[in-house]
Amino acid sequence: MLALGIDPGTAICGYGFVETRGNRLIPHAYGSIFTTPEMRMEDRLMKIFDELDGLIKEYHPDVMGVEKLFFNRNVTTAIPVGQARGVVLLAAAKNGLRLVERTPMQIKLDVTGYGKATKQQVIYMVTKLLHLEKPPKPDDTADALAIAICTTYCMHSIAWRNQL
Amino acid sequence: MLALGIDPGTAICGYGFVETRGNRLIPHAYGSIFTTPEMRMEDRLMKIFDELDGLIKEYHPDVMGVEKLFFNRNVTTAIPVGQARGVVLLAAAKNGLRLVERTPMQIKLDVTGYGKATKQQVIYMVTKLLHLEKPPKPDDTADALAIAICTTYCMHSIAWRNQL
Repeated sequence: MLALGIDPGTAICGYGFVETRGNRLIPHAYGSIFTTPEMRMEDRLMKIFDELDGLIKEYHPDVMGVEKLFFNRNVTTAIPVGQARGVVLLAAAKNGLRLVERTPMQIKLDVTGYGKATKQQVIYMVTKLLHLEKPPKPDDTADALAIAICTTYCMHSIAWRNQL
Repeated sequence: MLALGIDPGTAICGYGFVETRGNRLIPHAYGSIFTTPEMRMEDRLMKIFDELDGLIKEYHPDVMGVEKLFFNRNVTTAIPVGQARGVVLLAAAKNGLRLVERTPMQIKLDVTGYGKATKQQVIYMVTKLLHLEKPPKPDDTADALAIAICTTYCMHSIAWRNQL
């Protein structure tokens, strides 16, 4: 089962493919899509959509995981993040990809065993769980891999429940 | 010059095409794209993108106008509105359509002559300016036509300045 985790953003959009084989987690392609403030917003969104669409068509993931967003603070960033998230969800729909939404707490809990883990603890555990030589950069890539790990757990727990 | 105005939303996405011929404003197709809460969010966004993409390819507008958003209140709706706005901007970029962003105050000012006009005043003036038999429904359609009118004014003012 191959999961694609996405950390949506207009400037940096993290992505990571994680495969589960038995109880092993195997990282595949991971990285970030970058756009610059000099670009027009519609062109930034098109770059994110096109690169993500290309990655999905290349790796054929079974499921896409994205963070469920809550905005109590940082209201000013809610619109641009929402816009990036919109084209990410569109890429999933256009490719018939199943979508899983996980809260930040579920992601932290699944990756570190503690729902209130710090960003550094999450990055440390992502590096350990995927046997990476060094922490993925930028943080958006590490976050996307954390979401991918959480998404594989979520899919397995659905599969286990269906076997009951 | 044919302008397409869009009022982005996940449940209702208003659209309106307005042509300027001399100093006359001529309405073309206008209406709203509807999605239901029973649909998955990614499918709602795909419906908005696909229908809008089809309209752009059918009517070949010269420019797309959208409202510039500010969220000081209604934080909970910022993410879904941002997501809808994201696929709307993507439809513009994919079709090589020029994008114009106007603030709510600019739209009200251009349509009614008063930057703090009420929603009802805007709808009344849209109906008058476009010589419609009755106010467009739902309000999202009227808002989209108001944005289209404002966008045509904006484009003409750019053209006039370029002639100086």
